[in-house]
Amino acid sequence: MEQPRSLDVPGLVFGGDYNPEQWPEEKWREDVRLMNLAGVNLVTVGVFSWGRLEPREGVFDFEWLDRVLDLLHAHGIKADLATATASPPAWLVRAHPEMLPVDAFGTRLEFGSRQSYCPSSPVWREQSVRLCRMMATRYKDHPALAMWHVSNEYGDELSRCWCPTSAQAFRKWLQVRYRTIDALNEAWGTCVWSQIYASFEQIEPPRATPGPGNPSQRLDFERFSSDALVQLFDDEAAVLREVTPGVPVTTNFMGVCPGVDYWELAAREDIVSNDAYPDPADDDSGFGAGFGYSFMRSAKRGPWLLLESAPSAVNWRDVNVPKTTARRRLDAMQAIAHGSEGVMYFQWRQARQGAEQHHSAMVGHRGEASRTFHDTRSLGAELAALADVRGTTVHAEAAMIVDWDSWWASSALESLPSQRLAWAEQARRWHQAAAMLGVAVDIVRAEGPFDPYRVVLIPGLYLATPAQAAALTRFVETGGTLLVGGFSGVVDETETVHSGGPPGPLRNLLGVEIDEPWPLSDGATGAVELDDAAFATHLWHESIVAAAGTAVLARYRGGPLDGRPALTEHACGQGQARYLSCVLDDAGLSTVLQAALARAGVVVREAPSRVEVVTRTDGQADYTFWLNHSEQEQTLDTPAGAIDVLRGIPLASSTTVAAMDVLIARSPIRSEGSQ
Amino acid sequence: MEQPRSLDVPGLVFGGDYNPEQWPEEKWREDVRLMNLAGVNLVTVGVFSWGRLEPREGVFDFEWLDRVLDLLHAHGIKADLATATASPPAWLVRAHPEMLPVDAFGTRLEFGSRQSYCPSSPVWREQSVRLCRMMATRYKDHPALAMWHVSNEYGDELSRCWCPTSAQAFRKWLQVRYRTIDALNEAWGTCVWSQIYASFEQIEPPRATPGPGNPSQRLDFERFSSDALVQLFDDEAAVLREVTPGVPVTTNFMGVCPGVDYWELAAREDIVSNDAYPDPADDDSGFGAGFGYSFMRSAKRGPWLLLESAPSAVNWRDVNVPKTTARRRLDAMQAIAHGSEGVMYFQWRQARQGAEQHHSAMVGHRGEASRTFHDTRSLGAELAALADVRGTTVHAEAAMIVDWDSWWASSALESLPSQRLAWAEQARRWHQAAAMLGVAVDIVRAEGPFDPYRVVLIPGLYLATPAQAAALTRFVETGGTLLVGGFSGVVDETETVHSGGPPGPLRNLLGVEIDEPWPLSDGATGAVELDDAAFATHLWHESIVAAAGTAVLARYRGGPLDGRPALTEHACGQGQARYLSCVLDDAGLSTVLQAALARAGVVVREAPSRVEVVTRTDGQADYTFWLNHSEQEQTLDTPAGAIDVLRGIPLASSTTVAAMDVLIARSPIRSEGSQ
Amino acid sequence: MEQPRSLDVPGLVFGGDYNPEQWPEEKWREDVRLMNLAGVNLVTVGVFSWGRLEPREGVFDFEWLDRVLDLLHAHGIKADLATATASPPAWLVRAHPEMLPVDAFGTRLEFGSRQSYCPSSPVWREQSVRLCRMMATRYKDHPALAMWHVSNEYGDELSRCWCPTSAQAFRKWLQVRYRTIDALNEAWGTCVWSQIYASFEQIEPPRATPGPGNPSQRLDFERFSSDALVQLFDDEAAVLREVTPGVPVTTNFMGVCPGVDYWELAAREDIVSNDAYPDPADDDSGFGAGFGYSFMRSAKRGPWLLLESAPSAVNWRDVNVPKTTARRRLDAMQAIAHGSEGVMYFQWRQARQGAEQHHSAMVGHRGEASRTFHDTRSLGAELAALADVRGTTVHAEAAMIVDWDSWWASSALESLPSQRLAWAEQARRWHQAAAMLGVAVDIVRAEGPFDPYRVVLIPGLYLATPAQAAALTRFVETGGTLLVGGFSGVVDETETVHSGGPPGPLRNLLGVEIDEPWPLSDGATGAVELDDAAFATHLWHESIVAAAGTAVLARYRGGPLDGRPALTEHACGQGQARYLSCVLDDAGLSTVLQAALARAGVVVREAPSRVEVVTRTDGQADYTFWLNHSEQEQTLDTPAGAIDVLRGIPLASSTTVAAMDVLIARSPIRSEGSQ
Repeated sequence: MEQPRSLDVPGLVFGGDYNPEQWPEEKWREDVRLMNLAGVNLVTVGVFSWGRLEPREGVFDFEWLDRVLDLLHAHGIKADLATATASPPAWLVRAHPEMLPVDAFGTRLEFGSRQSYCPSSPVWREQSVRLCRMMATRYKDHPALAMWHVSNEYGDELSRCWCPTSAQAFRKWLQVRYRTIDALNEAWGTCVWSQIYASFEQIEPPRATPGPGNPSQRLDFERFSSDALVQLFDDEAAVLREVTPGVPVTTNFMGVCPGVDYWELAAREDIVSNDAYPDPADDDSGFGAGFGYSFMRSAKRGPWLLLESAPSAVNWRDVNVPKTTARRRLDAMQAIAHGSEGVMYFQWRQARQGAEQHHSAMVGHRGEASRTFHDTRSLGAELAALADVRGTTVHAEAAMIVDWDSWWASSALESLPSQRLAWAEQARRWHQAAAMLGVAVDIVRAEGPFDPYRVVLIPGLYLATPAQAAALTRFVETGGTLLVGGFSGVVDETETVHSGGPPGPLRNLLGVEIDEPWPLSDGATGAVELDDAAFATHLWHESIVAAAGTAVLARYRGGPLDGRPALTEHACGQGQARYLSCVLDDAGLSTVLQAALARAGVVVREAPSRVEVVTRTDGQADYTFWLNHSEQEQTLDTPAGAIDVLRGIPLASSTTVAAMDVLIARSPIRSEGSQ
Repeated sequence: MEQPRSLDVPGLVFGGDYNPEQWPEEKWREDVRLMNLAGVNLVTVGVFSWGRLEPREGVFDFEWLDRVLDLLHAHGIKADLATATASPPAWLVRAHPEMLPVDAFGTRLEFGSRQSYCPSSPVWREQSVRLCRMMATRYKDHPALAMWHVSNEYGDELSRCWCPTSAQAFRKWLQVRYRTIDALNEAWGTCVWSQIYASFEQIEPPRATPGPGNPSQRLDFERFSSDALVQLFDDEAAVLREVTPGVPVTTNFMGVCPGVDYWELAAREDIVSNDAYPDPADDDSGFGAGFGYSFMRSAKRGPWLLLESAPSAVNWRDVNVPKTTARRRLDAMQAIAHGSEGVMYFQWRQARQGAEQHHSAMVGHRGEASRTFHDTRSLGAELAALADVRGTTVHAEAAMIVDWDSWWASSALESLPSQRLAWAEQARRWHQAAAMLGVAVDIVRAEGPFDPYRVVLIPGLYLATPAQAAALTRFVETGGTLLVGGFSGVVDETETVHSGGPPGPLRNLLGVEIDEPWPLSDGATGAVELDDAAFATHLWHESIVAAAGTAVLARYRGGPLDGRPALTEHACGQGQARYLSCVLDDAGLSTVLQAALARAGVVVREAPSRVEVVTRTDGQADYTFWLNHSEQEQTLDTPAGAIDVLRGIPLASSTTVAAMDVLIARSPIRSEGSQ
Repeated sequence: MEQPRSLDVPGLVFGGDYNPEQWPEEKWREDVRLMNLAGVNLVTVGVFSWGRLEPREGVFDFEWLDRVLDLLHAHGIKADLATATASPPAWLVRAHPEMLPVDAFGTRLEFGSRQSYCPSSPVWREQSVRLCRMMATRYKDHPALAMWHVSNEYGDELSRCWCPTSAQAFRKWLQVRYRTIDALNEAWGTCVWSQIYASFEQIEPPRATPGPGNPSQRLDFERFSSDALVQLFDDEAAVLREVTPGVPVTTNFMGVCPGVDYWELAAREDIVSNDAYPDPADDDSGFGAGFGYSFMRSAKRGPWLLLESAPSAVNWRDVNVPKTTARRRLDAMQAIAHGSEGVMYFQWRQARQGAEQHHSAMVGHRGEASRTFHDTRSLGAELAALADVRGTTVHAEAAMIVDWDSWWASSALESLPSQRLAWAEQARRWHQAAAMLGVAVDIVRAEGPFDPYRVVLIPGLYLATPAQAAALTRFVETGGTLLVGGFSGVVDETETVHSGGPPGPLRNLLGVEIDEPWPLSDGATGAVELDDAAFATHLWHESIVAAAGTAVLARYRGGPLDGRPALTEHACGQGQARYLSCVLDDAGLSTVLQAALARAGVVVREAPSRVEVVTRTDGQADYTFWLNHSEQEQTLDTPAGAIDVLRGIPLASSTTVAAMDVLIARSPIRSEGSQ
């Protein structure tokens, strides 16, 4: 693939989803006036417009959209133009009722929400590509067009379909993967529970069954379903690249999310974009969003864009607490800190109708008088002052593995040692622990590449292949430090437990064998002794056996695993591989992480509690963001010669940052390297 | 409509549901003997008798019912005769399987419980009217016939159906309402999420969808479903009024209940009747029942009847705690206090079979020896002593708005600021707070009339129309006091958010704008400072802006809304409109309510904690009920010259009333007014 | 039926499920080597092998199984050979999709788990019998064949089916039971809620209904469904007894489990076998397993076999805590103590694929090095030392009634006094209380025979018949002691409440009438005064009336039942019948039980807290097992002249037993009897 197309908008991007079809045309002029007031330079248009563009089959109304784009252009605002295929129009669904998706219990889901289609539906594929081509052809030369926005949040309302069409497509997918039914039988272990198939025709998706289903079948259905969504993107992207080869293409992610393998989608995008909706009622949710930002930054190893976020409250939680002005600003600055090209919101003007009428917007129901618009203006002004940050990058010496296969394999099962050990939750905790140590973490595939890093973190890798193990071994042998969490290396790519049990292909690298996973009951805890300190373990620990030559860094104290190894280190070539066989409390996790980072020579950035430190750099100057996620004022040590970018004043060596406030310092890079 | 027909039973009504078809005929003589012993004068007969009256299509057996009615008449007992259409017989369902209801997931619900019909089924409508006419014709001249009982608890087991027949009826209903599909598209905001319909044929009921559905569609489906049930009542009532023009017609309500718009049903009834099943395990449930009683009293502004209640335990909760003798008596007296024509129970004799075999009865499984029958006799004797109360009325100076449209609109949504703010729960709390202040509250429609009242209370009115706002404004301008709770005036009748946001058409009247609702997380609280006292808010508060001229009576302290208005007052003409932007704790709510009542000149009746005071009057004497809902003995100040009605003795100025006991005092009305 | 065939394996049985088809043939040699190392003498083979034996219709591959059996035989290991009908092969299900089961909501459950069949399917019945005959014919003379294993855990994944085939079979079953539709209408009380049926054709299974269903219909559906599963066993057993008349037949139970009436299955088996999976995370779960063991011992009044248990963790709970080495050993010894012929596990070698890959095994994923295999060897050695125990029996003077009809009747209802009073939970508590008193309890049918016992315990018998009452009366009149718990004698065999209410036919025997059940709300408690001690009641108490001549042994104190009887005793002939009208806390239950046992002359075995004492005897010597279920070391008084069987040394009169340890003492029976 040629060099990715980039987003041609000057400065930091600022804007949101704009749905002018929900408003009378006279409101549009007020919209662009307010956008200009706030410094908006990009809006997403047309995401759900199919029904308005083609209200009946073959009856089109594009003129209103022409006028919208003209108006935006006239006011200097660019468009992230959707292909309008996020949801089908009513006429299409009624003409082809078989394209409605079906759940695992056989219920065909009705039209009346969004994403009302089976991803494998040939009708849907054909029709969505047809519309995509119409959009591309009509607007390919429009001066407002800055980016293509394909579909919307693939895998949000609908990521799996169990209908007969999907079943047929699943069978075809399996035939391609396994070629012979014997190969499938072996991969799925169908000799267990008398499930041997005589032909691919006998296979169905994993619908509701009397008891637990076949794990390998479920894993393959996850893969198939993800592939079906990726195919939808491919279909549209092919048209867009044919018609508008110079315009970048994106589709919006939803953080690190299980529905689709984002590595696959990211590889096909020109720009990675993300929707982030941390819950203001959860003090840690900002760190959770940061995990997603690390992924976005890493997905194409380049700039990315926060394409949606909430100006205040969302509407889809049970209780939707608004964002304070400070929280909104902190959230925005955090995205910038992590490499976003800007900050965009859902949505520009708060809807009066439909399912999102209670979702906050850049302009609230009260219009220009609303607090959210007041804050929108302030934020626009601050982002303008940060224009120089665009183009700078975040440099990470640590990497963390995120792997969809492993995630699916460990979460789509009724039968596990523990349903409580959720990979995503532990990954988020590891990432937060690193963030609190001021350490930037790139996200990498399980296959690597690991070369750019000093340390690789694996919170869990339930499914691990020999190739992955070989890549990790090369990394360690050439001096890298590896830290692997429990329940890793359990199954192979067919979800077959590795011969000899976990950690399977990681056994030699880690120098341990897992004799038995030993999950802890709800509320139960164990104790781990590490360097004379004691930490608590909960949810999970394992009975492991350290090989000769493997050092035991921590042991369990009391309980059924008393005296057995909890944390080990195995030297391997020039590096070392550590295995943490349990879920530790926050303090313990931080200690283990800090020790591994120290071993790897990664500098930890000392900062007050709950202050996240992220640095963007352009090689000449560092832009360091201190993001105070705490409700207390904090005092920071700032580098000599630093400038407070937002205020444009020099900084003293010690500076206070208010609760939920941010400090952005520009400092020249000294010859001895950044600190 | 002509003057409502009244219930021709002397004294207070006493009785229950009587299902003689469940018992051998020899048991009937014992039944009437025990009824006479207990003073029973009215029984409900035939509610579920269709299967017994017509066991096969066209094969009838009415003779047993003839004998039952004759026997009752011979013993001086009147019949509230059902039309026997509460549940279809098996042969009808099997001949027309398409009349069985279907849920939102497409499951057709099986025969074997009750209410096994689609309310829109033409077969059901035709057949139920046919049976109704047979009943009316056969018994029109029977001397025991005192009232017609149409169907049973409309909307209990089944209030919504998603079957194809219902879908067709829904489309017809929508066509009548909107005339053109363009009007519907505008009303429903279908341009959101690409939901534009090209014709009414494309519309289906709001079945299970991949994501959240269209709010306006859901609201209209609620309305349609309610109308379908009202139509069933209309069909039968038309027959009854044709055949027996002098006999009053009722259908039993279930308190204030979301399934059907009871305002619509009440307008069609001659006598409003109610089923009340407060949970004895819940100390506040009596107050909840009282909320329903206020509605019943107000529904036709006249006498009403408690047609069902539990003598002891019900059977349908997870844990069904029996009523003590005292609780049963208190519950009965409370209904009388609130204007009921009497007290009836489900059911006369405890069933040995079927789904209600564990529901208590006036005669328990042990028969005459059962505690419940012992208490039945005692209560019958006490009610006889209260005969003079019949015909007296409760006078209220305060009114509270109950509006089904608003209720449906705010509860049928997946996407709300908070799923925790339940209108019905807050309405019940406001009503209880008034009851504890000894203030009678009438329930009124959102359109009024408000003239008879000094104060109007609106715990919440999510859906508010300009016409309602105008009526409320007239009320305030002419001297009324209005107290409105949060999340009011949000949407219009199409569930479109009012232009400019809440409180929409109430903006000028209340003198506030709601900038943002600010729900509180589970367990979180805020503080409100009011007159130097501090109260807690939970679940809900709002960021509001008071207009110039609007007085701020209370403010938030601490938290994200620190210093912002919590309670406001806006003078308007000769009256004032107050807005309470949060959910307060009990003490705070009582304080706010008491202040509003005081402002309106409504006299609050001082009484000990948890003693409810209600007065019935005939213009010459007051009957004051002190209902001690507490577990402690309480001391009361009683009016001079009062007589203890139950004991027939004069009362001292200070009287004690035992825990869970009631005192009923008759006192002459003095020239300076009661109290 | 002729004398039951017995299991021809010398010494105590030791082994597990062996699934060689999941492994390459070269692994089989290692398997038998390790089996011999561990002393395995019986393995269960072929349970889920149909798909492997007949991968396509009519295409067979039995040779591998021939080789497996030959190999086992060559190594001195016997086979518990399955008929391979636990789950159908794919080709059968695809050829006959109507044989897949359907749930109460109409969802047809998909192939891909196990037990994917409608129990009433004629295709399934025909095909499973066909395969059973093939197995029997092929292996009837194989020297390894020691027992037939029919199906697997009937009623585990699937015990009820609501499909049209089941509906048709249900109607036929009803026709046999009731002969006329009038009889059914009367039995079911269909006059309630207009449910009268004109013909059997109008009846359907109790699918999802708008409201609560008919209790009698539900009870009959439970009976029908149980009978359908028993019929499947009968079909296969008939073939096996025809082809291999000398080989014992079993099917594995799952403790005391609601899906099938195990009394019916046990009567048809030659050997009763059981699968027991107590949760190691639950300290009381061992006692729960013991309840099942008492049933197994009693089901045929003879030896039984623990056919499945977990060597360590299971995989199907939310959190699957492993067993410590001590716990595994204690669990095994407990089964032996209660009369098991040996100890078997699921499974021999831990699977690498399929839904049970995370279930522990006798040989873990690490193979010979795994802890579980190490423990397997140790346990095998200890069991060998206990060989003499085989053939000894447990003698009980107390019996407890377990009755499936009563269980189903009280648990399949939406409408009960309390959903919290679960019979099985209370039965387990009563059994545990007896076990902690060192009292062996046989389990008996509600019809008896009771003659062999001094005391009969009935934790609850919701459904009680006059015949049962007569048998119990005879037992008491001839000197027996009866202790009956609350909510007994409520309904008859048609689930009709007994005339006069509970305890129905037990009224004269118990000398009490239940005026009203009085369930307690969640968290609420009451107090019972018994012999100057006070105990707490929760969940349940009743307002009862003691007849003249009935002694009140305990009364309620405070609350709505203050002063009323809680525990009564009624003398009847030479014995006495006690009624305990509430659920007591553990101390209270133990006190009540101990008093009843003392009254009956049953000797209570004093032992330290949580030490279970069970004795097996051969008439000459007693083998007494002290099972220390506590986490503390305990000191025991051991009989004079006793030998520590496992260590082969004489015991002092006082011996300590470590936490979770077991002591087995062999002592000669003295002339004055054991104890």
